[in-house]
Order: sequence, then C-alpha cells, then structure tokens
Amino acid sequence: MDKTAAHDLAPVTVAGLGPMGAALAAAFVDRGHPTTVWNRSAAKARPLVARGARHAQTLPEAAGASPLLVICVTDYAAAKSIIEGAGDALAGRTVVNLSSSTPEEAREAVGLAAGFGAAYLDGTIMVPVHVIGGPEAVFFYSGSRPVYDAQLETLRALGGDVRFLGDDPGLAVLYNTALLGLMWATANGYLHAAALVGTAGATAADFAPVGLDWLLPSVVIPILHGATKEIDEGVYPGDAGTVRMNLNAADHLLETSRAQGISTHVPRFLKDMLERTVEAGYGDGSYMGMIEVLRRPAEG
Amino acid sequence: MDKTAAHDLAPVTVAGLGPMGAALAAAFVDRGHPTTVWNRSAAKARPLVARGARHAQTLPEAAGASPLLVICVTDYAAAKSIIEGAGDALAGRTVVNLSSSTPEEAREAVGLAAGFGAAYLDGTIMVPVHVIGGPEAVFFYSGSRPVYDAQLETLRALGGDVRFLGDDPGLAVLYNTALLGLMWATANGYLHAAALVGTAGATAADFAPVGLDWLLPSVVIPILHGATKEIDEGVYPGDAGTVRMNLNAADHLLETSRAQGISTHVPRFLKDMLERTVEAGYGDGSYMGMIEVLRRPAEG
Ligand SMILES: NC(=O)c1ccc[n+]([C@@H]2O[C@H](COP(=O)([O-])OP(=O)(O)OC[C@H]3O[C@@H](n4cnc5c(N)ncnc54)[C@H](OP(=O)(O)O)[C@@H]3O)[C@@H](O)[C@H]2O)c1
Ligand SMILES: NC(=O)c1ccc[n+]([C@@H]2O[C@H](COP(=O)([O-])OP(=O)(O)OC[C@H]3O[C@@H](n4cnc5c(N)ncnc54)[C@H](OP(=O)(O)O)[C@@H]3O)[C@@H](O)[C@H]2O)c1
Repeated sequence: MDKTAAHDLAPVTVAGLGPMGAALAAAFVDRGHPTTVWNRSAAKARPLVARGARHAQTLPEAAGASPLLVICVTDYAAAKSIIEGAGDALAGRTVVNLSSSTPEEAREAVGLAAGFGAAYLDGTIMVPVHVIGGPEAVFFYSGSRPVYDAQLETLRALGGDVRFLGDDPGLAVLYNTALLGLMWATANGYLHAAALVGTAGATAADFAPVGLDWLLPSVVIPILHGATKEIDEGVYPGDAGTVRMNLNAADHLLETSRAQGISTHVPRFLKDMLERTVEAGYGDGSYMGMIEVLRRPAEG
Repeated sequence: MDKTAAHDLAPVTVAGLGPMGAALAAAFVDRGHPTTVWNRSAAKARPLVARGARHAQTLPEAAGASPLLVICVTDYAAAKSIIEGAGDALAGRTVVNLSSSTPEEAREAVGLAAGFGAAYLDGTIMVPVHVIGGPEAVFFYSGSRPVYDAQLETLRALGGDVRFLGDDPGLAVLYNTALLGLMWATANGYLHAAALVGTAGATAADFAPVGLDWLLPSVVIPILHGATKEIDEGVYPGDAGTVRMNLNAADHLLETSRAQGISTHVPRFLKDMLERTVEAGYGDGSYMGMIEVLRRPAEG
C-alpha cells in the first residue's frame, strides 16, 4: 500500500498496549492508518512508535488525535478510567471498547461516553493475539448500529470476520461469555468420553477421529441446528426420542462409567439435568425441552 | 443388480425385526443377499417376506440357513436367549450382535457363542433407522479382527461407514456410550448458551451461526484435536492458559448467568469441575488436565 493511499485512511488512537492492545495498534499501523498510541506505563509505546505509530503523552491528547479511540485494557474499571481521563477531548468522537466487561458494564459505558459527547460501541475479541489482523481474527460488536456502520471500514483493519450482534450493547460480551460455557461443556464431555474409552485401551488419538471428526460435525451440530425452531418456539415434540428415553440412556452411561472404574461427575450432571427436565414436566418431549429448565432462575 | 449376481452374495439371517432389525433385513434383501428372517412374534416377518426374504419358523432353522446370524433385539438378555435358542445350529457359523449391551455383556457373549462353536462379533449402530443401507449409516465393531475381516463385505450391505475399533469386544458399545455423553454435554452447553444470549433478545436462529457454525467447528474441535498429545502423554503445559484462569472465567459465567436471571446449573457444574482439577493439583496446567480427575473412580 503506497503512502498516499495510506494517508487517506481514518486516523485511529489505541489506548492500552498490553499483548492484545499492542497487536491491535500494530494491525492499524500495518494497514496504513495514521495511528496514535497511549499506555498507562509509557514504555510499552516504544515498539509501536518504531513501527510507525505516534505516541500521545496524555489521554486528552490521545483522544484528540483521532475520530476513533479504541480501548483495550484489562477490565471495565480500567476502560472507564481511560474514558474519564480523556474527558471532553472525546466530544464528537467515537469510543470502541474491546476490553473484557459484563453486559451491565457495556450498557453503562454508553451513558458514560455520551456524558462527554462521544458515541460508544462495545466489542469483544474472540481470538488469540497471533491472528489479529489476519482473516481468522473474529470480533463481535453490539449496540448502536449507526456507530458500527460508521466505524466498520476502520475496524476491518483488525481482521477478517467482524459481526454485529444486535442493539443491546451487552450482547457482544454476553455471546463471548455464553460461548465460553459451550466450549467448556463440550470439552468436559469430550474428556469424559476419552477417559471412558481409555479404560478399554483406546487413546485420544484413536478416539478423536470418531468423537471430533465424526460425532460433533456430523451428528451433534446438525441435531442442534435442527432444534432451532423448537427452541425459538418453545415446543418440543418427542416423536424422535424423549427426555425419558435419554434419561434411561444417561443412567446407562453412569453405570458404565462406574463399572469401568472412572469418575461419575460428568454422567451424574447429565443425568441430573435430564431428571430436572422430567420434573419440570418436559419428560415426554424432545431433549431440547431442557432449555425451559435452563431459562429459569430457580436453583431447585 | 441382476438375479445371477445377487445369488453370489453370502446368505444372511437376521433375528429381531423391530424397527431397526427390519431395516437391516431390508438392506440385505435390497442388496441381493439371500436373507432369512426370524422374529419372536412371527407377524413382523411378513413385510420382509413380501420384499423377498425367507421366514424361518424356529431359531435353529434361522441359524442353519446362513453362515452369518445378525441379531438386533432390545437388549443383551434378548440376544442371549436367541443365541441359546439357536444352540448347536450355530456351529461353524458367525454371530454379529447389533443389540444394545454393556461392555461386560459384549465380552461375555464371545464365550457364549464359542460354547456353541460360533465366532462372535459385537457391533453398535450409530445412526437412526432411516439411513440404514445408505452412505450415512455408521456402524462400529470390535473384538476379533479376523471375524470382522471375514464378514466385512457382507456387513457393508448395511451402509457406508463401517469402523473396527479394536480387539476388546466391549469397545464398540463403550464408544457408543461415551459418544452419547459427549453429545449430551455439548447439547447442555449449547442450550445454556442459547438461554443466556436469549436474555438479551437473541434467538437460537441468531445464535446458531456463531455457536454452531463458528465456535464448535473453528475453535472447539481444533482445540480438542490439539490436545490429543497432552491427553495421551498425561502432560498438560499451561503456557497458553491455565485451569486457574479458566476457573476465574467460569466464575464470571456463573455470575453473568445469575445476573441475567437464568439457571446456574451448567456454570456451577463447569466451575465445580475446574475446582476439582485445581484441588487435584492441575491448576497451573492446561484445561485438559481435567481428564486426570475424570480418569479416577473417586466420588470426592
Ligand atoms: N490476550 C488475549 O489473547 C486476549 C484475547 C481476547 C480478549 N482479550 C482482552 O483484551 C484485553 C487486553 O488484554 P491483554 O492481553 O492486552 O492484557 P491485559 O493484562 O488484560 O491488559 C493489559 C493492559 O491493561 C492496562 N491496564 C490495566 N489496568 C489499567 C488501569 N487501571 N488504567 C489504565 N490501563 C490499565 C495495562 O496497562 P499497563 O501496561 O500500564 O499495566 C495494559 O495496557 C483484556 O480485556 C482481555 O480480556 C485478550
Ligand atoms: N431404532 C433405532 O433408531 C436404533 C438406533 C441404534 C441402535 N438401535 C438398537 O437396535 C436394537 C433394536 O432396536 P429397535 O429399534 O428395532 O427396537 P427394540 O424395541 O429395541 O427391539 C425390538 C426387537 O427386540 C425383540 N425382542 C425384545 N425382547 C426379546 C426377547 N426376550 N426375545 C426375543 N426377541 C426380543 C422384539 O421382538 P418382538 O417383536 O417379538 O417384541 C423386536 O424384534 C436395540 O438394541 C437398539 O438399541 C436402534
């Protein structure tokens, strides 16, 4: 990209130069955006300056240097201190916050920025540092659609897969949190399965082609896809198999785990959730009726 | 397939004509195998006879009609009663049992069949009735490799994807049971995630492209694949993230679930398993160290 073209790109400021913030700033610089950087401990700006960034000494200077301020720090408290430190220098500008937070904090931040006359967009980074700037980088945003649309071209410098999830500013972080739970739950199921087949001498290398290359992509993902309508309509027809049938089979998993001499934590949890689903009155419907139990606050 | 070619295929007997057994028998008939059928309640043989099968009135007659007897009934007790009913008519023949059972029952069956002079192979059917005979049908077998090799050509009539898992006759059913657990664990994680994003108005139709089309195939499956060596070697380096770090994040999932007013069952289980992993001394290693807890019988 030649210098003339580069200087047509929108200026950006990045506040927070930890591993992730530094990767974001580097991606902006490399893409040719005039990039200003700020960090609480100033030394971390040096490698970015060597790469072509400008170093702002104060937060008002940092915010004033660009129409867009991207914040990437440890948590919301740190992000908040940066917005407050920039203060009125933010008037008429946009803050994109990519720091970890809760849905409530993301919603609160909209008002905080608005108090200084700034637009606000909340986002989460779904990938590790080393893919930032490349096609595998995935970012979720939520909140004001017009703010997102206005910044999208600039934000694309950070990587290929950029998704707007909806009007609630808390959605991006909520998706992030929810996806972690899905990841852990799947990992726990996989590790228990690997432990179980391991009792008969099968290694993870034996099991992966079946569990990871076949079951998850060819059975589980299609079944869950097929449940979209059930979940959204709250109707769970049991004609292809019921919660009660699965409860019997879960009991078999529990007994087999015990007989093979391994932990019963995972099967007991699975059986417990099926029992709760039966108790809630969804025993004769499909497995997906379990979401009715999960949607409730009751700790039962 | 013309009649001459068809009659070169090995004769097969199918005992058990419930929904699944009937589908197996139909697949053999349609592929051109001379097929004999038997069922406890004889009436179920009628549609198969109309399709071209021969109906055996007694178990010895059924077993004597073919070198291979495929059994597909409710459970091991029923399969055992069929083997015993066929008795000495099984001498020099092979029994393939596709009925549900436990690993112990599968091992026991080898000796039971051997007592009548028959070879035995245990298998499990991993797909629903409607794909039997087609390329999407998946069958697992385990036990004697020579018996499997000798029957493979015939067994391929039942569908496309046939896998031999190893010498332990209990492996096929163990895989089946283990995979069910993986499926349920993933489904529970997905339903909790859908419930969580649902609190901010996202539907399952909104969430599926992210959770099912991106996270599971592009993040979770590659991570679990990448853990194969760790799991098989029992060494869990924590440099890309530790159990303790995940425990903090799991606490955040728990708090967010509570704050959004939904069930905390799934996050409490996830957090609990991470805590057990820390207590077991694997807190500073990778997430996959959890398998050391799962491999132990302790109920803790
Ligand atoms: N690293 C990843 O793989 C990854 C992936 C996805 C998302 N994220 C998210 O990205 C954000 C940044 O992560 P990171 O990996 O760069 O490391 P981090 O340790 O989470 O954040 C370090 C940055 O936060 C700054 N900071 C902390 N407290 C501050 C305060 N009170 N005031 C001002 N600045 C403060 C640090 O400044 P000093 O240098 O002065 O300490 C440093 O710039 C986090 O929210 C993280 O969850 C990271
Ligand atoms: N259906 C599926 O989608 C599916 C998928 C994978 C695996 N499987 C497995 O396939 C096997 C058969 O399943 P299915 O769906 O066909 O229905 P099923 O209800 O599990 O089995 C019905 C068959 O078992 C016979 N049977 C039951 N008890 C018997 C006994 N004591 N003696 C002799 N025969 C007995 C029945 O005979 P009567 O007709 O005389 O009652 C009938 O032929 C099961 O082990 C099942 O787990 C099924």
